[in-house]
Amino acid sequence: MPDAISIIMAKRDGHVLSEDQIDWVVDGFTRGIVADEQMSALAMAILLRGMTRAETSRWTAAMIASGQRLDFTDLPAPAVDKHSTGGVGDKITLPLAPLVAACGAAVPQLSGRGLGHTGGTLDKLESIPGWRADLSTADMRRILSDPDVGAVICAAGADLAPADKKLYALRDVTGTVESIPLLASSIMSKKIAEGTGSLVLDVKFGAGAFMKTREGAHELATAMVELGRDAGLPTVALLTAMQTPLGLTAGNALEVAESIDVLQGGGPADVVELTLVLAREMLELAGIRDVDPADRLADGSAMDRWRAMIAAQGGDPNASLPRAKHTEVVTAPESGVLTELDAMAVGIAVRQLGAGRARQGDAVQFGAGIELAAKPGDKVRRGQVLFTLHTDTPDTFAGAVETLASGWTIGSDAPAPSPLVVDRVS
Amino acid sequence: MPDAISIIMAKRDGHVLSEDQIDWVVDGFTRGIVADEQMSALAMAILLRGMTRAETSRWTAAMIASGQRLDFTDLPAPAVDKHSTGGVGDKITLPLAPLVAACGAAVPQLSGRGLGHTGGTLDKLESIPGWRADLSTADMRRILSDPDVGAVICAAGADLAPADKKLYALRDVTGTVESIPLLASSIMSKKIAEGTGSLVLDVKFGAGAFMKTREGAHELATAMVELGRDAGLPTVALLTAMQTPLGLTAGNALEVAESIDVLQGGGPADVVELTLVLAREMLELAGIRDVDPADRLADGSAMDRWRAMIAAQGGDPNASLPRAKHTEVVTAPESGVLTELDAMAVGIAVRQLGAGRARQGDAVQFGAGIELAAKPGDKVRRGQVLFTLHTDTPDTFAGAVETLASGWTIGSDAPAPSPLVVDRVS
Repeated sequence: MPDAISIIMAKRDGHVLSEDQIDWVVDGFTRGIVADEQMSALAMAILLRGMTRAETSRWTAAMIASGQRLDFTDLPAPAVDKHSTGGVGDKITLPLAPLVAACGAAVPQLSGRGLGHTGGTLDKLESIPGWRADLSTADMRRILSDPDVGAVICAAGADLAPADKKLYALRDVTGTVESIPLLASSIMSKKIAEGTGSLVLDVKFGAGAFMKTREGAHELATAMVELGRDAGLPTVALLTAMQTPLGLTAGNALEVAESIDVLQGGGPADVVELTLVLAREMLELAGIRDVDPADRLADGSAMDRWRAMIAAQGGDPNASLPRAKHTEVVTAPESGVLTELDAMAVGIAVRQLGAGRARQGDAVQFGAGIELAAKPGDKVRRGQVLFTLHTDTPDTFAGAVETLASGWTIGSDAPAPSPLVVDRVS
Repeated sequence: MPDAISIIMAKRDGHVLSEDQIDWVVDGFTRGIVADEQMSALAMAILLRGMTRAETSRWTAAMIASGQRLDFTDLPAPAVDKHSTGGVGDKITLPLAPLVAACGAAVPQLSGRGLGHTGGTLDKLESIPGWRADLSTADMRRILSDPDVGAVICAAGADLAPADKKLYALRDVTGTVESIPLLASSIMSKKIAEGTGSLVLDVKFGAGAFMKTREGAHELATAMVELGRDAGLPTVALLTAMQTPLGLTAGNALEVAESIDVLQGGGPADVVELTLVLAREMLELAGIRDVDPADRLADGSAMDRWRAMIAAQGGDPNASLPRAKHTEVVTAPESGVLTELDAMAVGIAVRQLGAGRARQGDAVQFGAGIELAAKPGDKVRRGQVLFTLHTDTPDTFAGAVETLASGWTIGSDAPAPSPLVVDRVS
């Protein structure tokens, strides 16, 4: 009979946990038999001692088994999903889901709300009047089966990997977030439980990402791809740069507007590029090879899917998006080249303006955020607008401008261009 | 402003904690601002990453500062105490405290109750009718100042290093006991707070001790001697063997009776030896160099002090000690030499008979325990009694005999004699 203390001590001393030990401790934690203080000690031991691939796969399976497991692989269209590890200005899910649906796949995207410096997909969509994140499984299935929709972006139900929800909240306050096996199993347990048929991961690295280095991102990507394979879920990961924000907007309604630009055939080049690269990976996994997603952006069919997807979740695709009550601009103090624009500084400033949360449960301002008029490498003239800050709470401007100031520089030489997608793990 | 998560992460990542961080986290834990799950993650990080001598000293000081600090250095006699890390049959405190008082020092011994396989000094003394462990500080001072007593053995008040009490209970259930800095600071915070003027440590190693190896014991002894020095408390540690039980008894009243034998000039050689070695170390630290404690055993003055000490805490030194209702013997199945008698097996069997606790708060049987008729190296004849088991609950005999059976062997060659005191750290 396993017990919590002996399991903690085994991992503490560098041993490999048995399947029985993993099943028992994850189940016991979910049911409250393993105390929070015991699980946090175990999480720290796992962080410092590691877990093997087999341990991590079993841990993931145990977290999935703690709740309900959906299955959308019997839909008429192949189900495929994407998950991003999070970045600043990362609104890719918004154009991507309807685009991939327009190409013939079903996209069952269970998403989350933002915390800290990265925005949450649900927060962005909730800026659309009427749109709601909470769907029943039956609603999801109905929308995914609808030949005119085929994509949902909604909140994960409480019964989806409840062990992960409980463990993540605990890790968040005990300094045990930064463990590759625990990070990988947290993400993959939810994605496997959501019932997709295959999965593309966008693993970000750089100043604005959770993973600061390419090496760390590669390690996390490899762990997640392995977990997918071990669970029978075909998974591909792309490593993408998150040194500077994606696109020209960060903030909920601002990012929705930029996403609509992309769906209408416009939008910033980096957002379009990443949307198409991820769409092609998803379609490849879904076995759909005769469609170029760029055509679906150009012919308006992706935009039609967007409108149908928003409407299917109660939103009004024709409604005006919320706008913040106040704006302020930051202008260039000299002419030259924008040599740096740090994603983390932008992310924190956007949160300060009210677009994000410092703590779970905080309200967000839908109109708040920052528009970027220049990206690294762009020439700027003295006095030109660099950033437009939006908020309903103008007392936040000073702090946000100060935060932002630590993140950008004007120089004389353009930085070497760096690729957005730097590696692929499969 | 320190915060719990950043402190956990700093230790997790192998950094040295600052004095501010240590003070803040120990104080915050005592007051409930640092949650149990945060302290257990920190304890695991400390266990796996270690603490420097300076960190451990500060941690110890912070635990002392969490409560009241006594001071008995102003008594007429120099105050000196002993602490043992615990073993099976370790009743040395009982004859030692009155013996050292008889030699002219004051002994303010704050002690604990037993848990697991080692007996608690307070449990042993509570087998004496009327004796009580709870004394006020004023009572302690009065007894220590009394020229006819000069020794107290009592329970630590709730306000003595409360951070340590809370932390120990947490470590006990989170697999974080076995950390040298945490072990050393736990012991030394209580001993420094109890107000002694100097301290002798009996650090045990071997099968029946917490530390299984001499190396581990040496490391713990060194850490504790350093903490004593850093706190201005002269401290000496002896490393002593705990492969086989000390003396010929294990169990509460049985050990009191054996202690009285020693105080009356008799008793087993190993108990007498260790009592005298520790007494000489204590007297040396107390600056008392003209008295041989062996004389005080021989002339009855140590026994007089014992009677006075027991009476001063409400006990009747003339009362009969409790005896268990049932006994059973284990006899030698063949003639030869007792080659092994494992202290851990004896300790667990004694607990099974009812003399100890599996969990805090369990009641103990005062009469339960085991008398040993032979020790390793002794010749035994087929059919002779090896062990006499005592209990009020005779249904425990079978299990205790079975436990004991795993711990002794009869062979043809006597084991090489091994010394009791193997090293000294100062």
